Amino acid sequence: MIPRYTRPEMAEIFEAQNRFKIWLEIETLACEKMAELGIIPASVPKILREKGNFDVARIDEIEREVKHDVIAFLTSVAEFVGPDSRYVHQGMTSSDVIDTAFSVQLTQAADLLLKDLDLLLRALKKQALEHASTLCIGRSHGIHAEPTTFGMKLAGHYAAFKRAKERLKAAREDIAVCTVSGAVGTYATVNPQVEAYIAQKMGLKPETVATQVIPRDRHAMFFAVLGIIASSVENLATEIRHLQRTEVREAEEFFSQGQKGSSAMPHKRNPVLSENLTGLARLVRSMVIPAMENVTLWHERDISHSSVERNIAPDACVTLDFSLVRLTGIVENLLIYPDTMKDNLEKTGGLIFSQGVMLALTQADVSREDSYRMVQRNAMKVWESRGSLSFMDALLADGEVTEKLDKSKLQSIFDYKNYTKHIDSILKRALI
Amino acid sequence: MIPRYTRPEMAEIFEAQNRFKIWLEIETLACEKMAELGIIPASVPKILREKGNFDVARIDEIEREVKHDVIAFLTSVAEFVGPDSRYVHQGMTSSDVIDTAFSVQLTQAADLLLKDLDLLLRALKKQALEHASTLCIGRSHGIHAEPTTFGMKLAGHYAAFKRAKERLKAAREDIAVCTVSGAVGTYATVNPQVEAYIAQKMGLKPETVATQVIPRDRHAMFFAVLGIIASSVENLATEIRHLQRTEVREAEEFFSQGQKGSSAMPHKRNPVLSENLTGLARLVRSMVIPAMENVTLWHERDISHSSVERNIAPDACVTLDFSLVRLTGIVENLLIYPDTMKDNLEKTGGLIFSQGVMLALTQADVSREDSYRMVQRNAMKVWESRGSLSFMDALLADGEVTEKLDKSKLQSIFDYKNYTKHIDSILKRALI
Amino acid sequence: MIPRYTRPEMAEIFEAQNRFKIWLEIETLACEKMAELGIIPASVPKILREKGNFDVARIDEIEREVKHDVIAFLTSVAEFVGPDSRYVHQGMTSSDVIDTAFSVQLTQAADLLLKDLDLLLRALKKQALEHASTLCIGRSHGIHAEPTTFGMKLAGHYAAFKRAKERLKAAREDIAVCTVSGAVGTYATVNPQVEAYIAQKMGLKPETVATQVIPRDRHAMFFAVLGIIASSVENLATEIRHLQRTEVREAEEFFSQGQKGSSAMPHKRNPVLSENLTGLARLVRSMVIPAMENVTLWHERDISHSSVERNIAPDACVTLDFSLVRLTGIVENLLIYPDTMKDNLEKTGGLIFSQGVMLALTQADVSREDSYRMVQRNAMKVWESRGSLSFMDALLADGEVTEKLDKSKLQSIFDYKNYTKHIDSILKRALI
Amino acid sequence: MIPRYTRPEMAEIFEAQNRFKIWLEIETLACEKMAELGIIPASVPKILREKGNFDVARIDEIEREVKHDVIAFLTSVAEFVGPDSRYVHQGMTSSDVIDTAFSVQLTQAADLLLKDLDLLLRALKKQALEHASTLCIGRSHGIHAEPTTFGMKLAGHYAAFKRAKERLKAAREDIAVCTVSGAVGTYATVNPQVEAYIAQKMGLKPETVATQVIPRDRHAMFFAVLGIIASSVENLATEIRHLQRTEVREAEEFFSQGQKGSSAMPHKRNPVLSENLTGLARLVRSMVIPAMENVTLWHERDISHSSVERNIAPDACVTLDFSLVRLTGIVENLLIYPDTMKDNLEKTGGLIFSQGVMLALTQADVSREDSYRMVQRNAMKVWESRGSLSFMDALLADGEVTEKLDKSKLQSIFDYKNYTKHIDSILKRALI
Repeated sequence: MIPRYTRPEMAEIFEAQNRFKIWLEIETLACEKMAELGIIPASVPKILREKGNFDVARIDEIEREVKHDVIAFLTSVAEFVGPDSRYVHQGMTSSDVIDTAFSVQLTQAADLLLKDLDLLLRALKKQALEHASTLCIGRSHGIHAEPTTFGMKLAGHYAAFKRAKERLKAAREDIAVCTVSGAVGTYATVNPQVEAYIAQKMGLKPETVATQVIPRDRHAMFFAVLGIIASSVENLATEIRHLQRTEVREAEEFFSQGQKGSSAMPHKRNPVLSENLTGLARLVRSMVIPAMENVTLWHERDISHSSVERNIAPDACVTLDFSLVRLTGIVENLLIYPDTMKDNLEKTGGLIFSQGVMLALTQADVSREDSYRMVQRNAMKVWESRGSLSFMDALLADGEVTEKLDKSKLQSIFDYKNYTKHIDSILKRALI
Repeated sequence: MIPRYTRPEMAEIFEAQNRFKIWLEIETLACEKMAELGIIPASVPKILREKGNFDVARIDEIEREVKHDVIAFLTSVAEFVGPDSRYVHQGMTSSDVIDTAFSVQLTQAADLLLKDLDLLLRALKKQALEHASTLCIGRSHGIHAEPTTFGMKLAGHYAAFKRAKERLKAAREDIAVCTVSGAVGTYATVNPQVEAYIAQKMGLKPETVATQVIPRDRHAMFFAVLGIIASSVENLATEIRHLQRTEVREAEEFFSQGQKGSSAMPHKRNPVLSENLTGLARLVRSMVIPAMENVTLWHERDISHSSVERNIAPDACVTLDFSLVRLTGIVENLLIYPDTMKDNLEKTGGLIFSQGVMLALTQADVSREDSYRMVQRNAMKVWESRGSLSFMDALLADGEVTEKLDKSKLQSIFDYKNYTKHIDSILKRALI
Repeated sequence: MIPRYTRPEMAEIFEAQNRFKIWLEIETLACEKMAELGIIPASVPKILREKGNFDVARIDEIEREVKHDVIAFLTSVAEFVGPDSRYVHQGMTSSDVIDTAFSVQLTQAADLLLKDLDLLLRALKKQALEHASTLCIGRSHGIHAEPTTFGMKLAGHYAAFKRAKERLKAAREDIAVCTVSGAVGTYATVNPQVEAYIAQKMGLKPETVATQVIPRDRHAMFFAVLGIIASSVENLATEIRHLQRTEVREAEEFFSQGQKGSSAMPHKRNPVLSENLTGLARLVRSMVIPAMENVTLWHERDISHSSVERNIAPDACVTLDFSLVRLTGIVENLLIYPDTMKDNLEKTGGLIFSQGVMLALTQADVSREDSYRMVQRNAMKVWESRGSLSFMDALLADGEVTEKLDKSKLQSIFDYKNYTKHIDSILKRALI
Repeated sequence: MIPRYTRPEMAEIFEAQNRFKIWLEIETLACEKMAELGIIPASVPKILREKGNFDVARIDEIEREVKHDVIAFLTSVAEFVGPDSRYVHQGMTSSDVIDTAFSVQLTQAADLLLKDLDLLLRALKKQALEHASTLCIGRSHGIHAEPTTFGMKLAGHYAAFKRAKERLKAAREDIAVCTVSGAVGTYATVNPQVEAYIAQKMGLKPETVATQVIPRDRHAMFFAVLGIIASSVENLATEIRHLQRTEVREAEEFFSQGQKGSSAMPHKRNPVLSENLTGLARLVRSMVIPAMENVTLWHERDISHSSVERNIAPDACVTLDFSLVRLTGIVENLLIYPDTMKDNLEKTGGLIFSQGVMLALTQADVSREDSYRMVQRNAMKVWESRGSLSFMDALLADGEVTEKLDKSKLQSIFDYKNYTKHIDSILKRALI
């Protein structure tokens, strides 16, 4: 996480200020319930609501001495609250505060990412609809296959990010749990009703069995979903990088006035934003394994996961947030060149209709093997002519073919409409 | 995937025989619908049902020449079916068969893993209930913290594997899709009703937008969930390894007659099964990143994901299946030593009641800081005495403490029952 | 590791037959030295050399009972050797045999990989020399940058695989260690001279401190180097996939007679081998993390690394071996199209000379910023004309430019020779 | 990389100030050589040495407009240098500066890490020598195996970090290369002598073939080595965590006055530093895969690696630097308890001598199988007695054993000296 790839909205969620604010809220809610249950004086919650506060710099200072962040925090709070602070955190353990707050931070992050996804989906949908019938070549293995439309391409990515959203919602649900169950999770020193109250107030559910900490398989799930979303970002970014290649140039990232593509070569317009997203995806993905390694804690817990999460939680969330927003910008401002798409479609001299011809032969009672051979031998001739021969001409010159398919039949096969007849219904299904 | 760590039930799902069987079913179903739609002769499906077959060795042989597995398969089928085979696979592309069949294989694998999880859950539940009140020490950081019960420990793992089950169900749902939409997914050459029919018959849903292939974020999700489950396996395996340590020895893997722990040291009984699971977890986890790298395919598809999946699909599923079954066996046959658990509980001379004392002091109007200091100074003295001093004696000898808490108050704190009062309700919540 | 991507030469190294053969050699060498030292009867080594043997199936059978592979092996050997077998393995621990043999297997694998690299280097060198002056466009960000030659491209990959070779040699050295030091590595029960003798005979060095096992950082290094080599394979494979794109088509994988590119589209010639290598690279790379996780063993050793290595050692070595051989074949048989390279060079209407023009302007006393602007404004005009405008014409029509650079000066800039003058010396440096 | 786990020494290497300082030096050196070659006016280098400077904030500001960091840097330099700045960077491309500077940064980082390793080695050596003969139990699988010494344990880790040092030196060498070869690396616009001069002045070697950038397999190697070192850190950290377990407690991390181990349980002294290192190792390790994914760049280069390296270079170096320093502190201040080590040695009632007994039986003409059985049956009896039975007593009560080994023979086997006789020579070999 470096400023260059960070949006403050997400970074703030993981800053000390926000974390301690959530800690204070948890402690305050705990006091409210404990007071209600008569465990601590009834006056405490009100005092906390009035005077409860903390000082980040002071906490740092205290932590350097006591080497314990929650104790440092409580000491700082005590300096604001006075002697009544003794009732704060009573019977609770540090993890009760840390883990519950971490859940809140991750749900906040998830909510921001869900908003990012909505904006990306909107941008993709707009472009997909606008280019629903913009013809272009579909490529498998980088090789021209058959016609499709640019809207269809985008609809595929739209569908992927809709799945991303569903998975992220589920992962958010998975992580939206709290634990306020004391040391080793037995509620020996804290009434379960305190946990239930905090959970309800903060939109969380109590952990089923908290062995002092919230089990890390929940967090692993969260980061895994982020890694998958980042991979979908890379997928679309790679598509754009391909489309912008000099030889293809069907689309380009917006190139602003004043922008310089290369210090040495003033003619360059590079898909640097999409390349950047490719790299950022590698980063988000790399955090999945440490998150999974965190699942194994010794006995009721150790603290090895903490240094990992202090890094990957902000890093993964910030990087994915930045990536989604950047991708949305790329999609919204993408320069799309339907004419070049059309030119490229025609680059192979009609080879892209080869399946159509083969099917027609099959239907004209030629065996699959023979059909394949008849079409392939003409296709390879055209392919090797490097543009000087057209597939239609080659077929028309092949007696074995024309015996089965006459010119008008062949012409009906060489028709883009054959390939777009279902595009509308696919888009309808995808873009709901 | 090596025989040593493989159960045939899972391996068979990924063998050629099963894959081609599914391929044939897909082609046959496609013909059924095409015949119904009048695209191919009405007689074809019946012929296929009667004569449709394939020969794995023959397919291998043909593939060596044509270098294309689906073509090789179709050729083998044609050798059984005769001239009508020309109608098979009509308008379809290889991915229609390969990807749909892969979905079927993964759902079969998921179903087996779900069954494995059920058996593991049953074993955990049985032991958890049996040891619901078997006292043992809860440890954080490997250090004695406060009492808990062995049933509570197991209930935590039970809850983790219940979450695993829910996630696996969702991942199964995610991958239970088919595509029969032809080259670049436009249905240009295959009627969407064919796909709908196959989907319905095979318990799948049609892919929203298939760019020739089923998008790989679905598969990434599947393997990520497997990685997380493996991590939960490692978590429990690590617990057992810890419990079996010579100094702890609260539980041991079953050691069969005739078994030899070490070639050199006949006295050894090693937790080798649990160590083995630790290693296997690393393997399953390692397949998550390649699965995510697979999400990025060039344009409408490339084939880079294929070699990855040919390896990780059987490897991850077989290894996790084996791990779950092995873990179930370990849990079922675990030698559990309640007496040693009790002995260990008492090893720190009562230090594990330190929080209780601190809380009592706080409630007796001592500030949190002072309470902490009073308890800590006595605790450290006991800790450093290495067993020659008891915490109770130390406290009774500390005037500042006894001024606030008399002996009988202290004795009521030094009571295991304080720690187990909520265990039953936690177990009830967990083991439903 | 599946047959499809496996060469028997490498697979055999990891088969039981080879492993047990090495085990037997270690035990025999140990007996030779022990006999020499008078620890065991002088007759034992000779008996072992004569009758020493094992039976893989029998070992499997015994292992199922005793659950210990070395004991099973020794029992099988005893069945061949008779009562003198009691002297075999005396004072040694299983790891002495297993780890030393594993080192031998890995050095055998390294030697095969080094041979693979040599063949790949030879193929690259041949093509690089042949195409030393075959002009083609150099691309950064997928966008045409400046001219280079195809030989230069290949020389870069040649240099990468030479580095690969050096690193693999070092990794081989790193892993070429043995341990024969008994339980927990103290030589309590085995004379250090036995280890020294075995090491010398087998081309290994004794481990500095073996805590029963050879420390796993050595193995981690080995697998990391394999992962890096696989990444270099992916790099060249990706280059070829790009060159084969329909719009680029500067090179193609050899397409054999009888080969079928697509079941549906007979015109397709896909770079499937290179795509396959891309996937295989993901696999080899994925084994690096488990190898690193293996470094942490509990105390003097646990066995968690074993299941990992039983899988990744054959998998990584077999997959990389297969990849290198496949890549060599691709390079040797690559169809290279110099004419298309030339055509592509000229696709941007001379824009690729933009830096030359800018430098000339700077040397003609225009500031860098102004030079950049003058060149960029003309370049963008040409870029957006999509081929209808030439860069030379645009510059000649720009008075501000022609004031500084006349036509003949501009023509001397638009000369490919400017870009190839150092290629020979680079190739000489690289291809030694 | 967060302040909590960051030492300024390492962080500064990756700060903008240091990076731009190196950039300026590269540009200045380039001008020196170009002036000498008569390519630019002889006065330029002197002016640059006098007035050459930059302003980080200004560079940020310019970059926001031009979206190109090198151009922004050059503009800032120009504002200090004046019109002569036009000669700066002439014929060079951005990567010439960026990649060469990155090499310098990584060698600086490597040098700091090498220093860290030296300090760690010193600390380990000191403790190893001090505890050369401190007896303790060696454990395999967490189970008591045979005696060793604490110095021997540490010597093993010493040897691992010595290997780490050798590998890091090699990785430093691997990355100590520069490229100043212009766009696509052809030296078309920059004389190779410029590169040679810069290389010599900066302690680097020119890249063999730079396709505009330094090939990323070099960087992958660097980060892989960091990942392996981090894994060795984790290995030692895990040892310490084990030793500090309540039941073992053979060593403890230093616990400072004022430190608080737990907010809830004042008696706790947790190995939190070692646990922290365990987590940090996961982080460093996780950066290896992205570094390897970076190896594949499109054609002559793309920029996808950049965002990865901007993160992982500081993160991996800072985290490993912090880890090594923290580990050194832990080792230096480790509380070591020889008495507890002795107590633990004796916990199994002499079982740890089982191999000695077995060997003696073998030498007394009992077959290996019978020896094993005789020893194992007594060992298991003792093991199951949980301390109430001693192994010596059991053996003495077993007629079949005493027939072969009399009491005095058995007593000579039950002697720690048998296990330490080679320790000195191992330590001598390791600690040189």
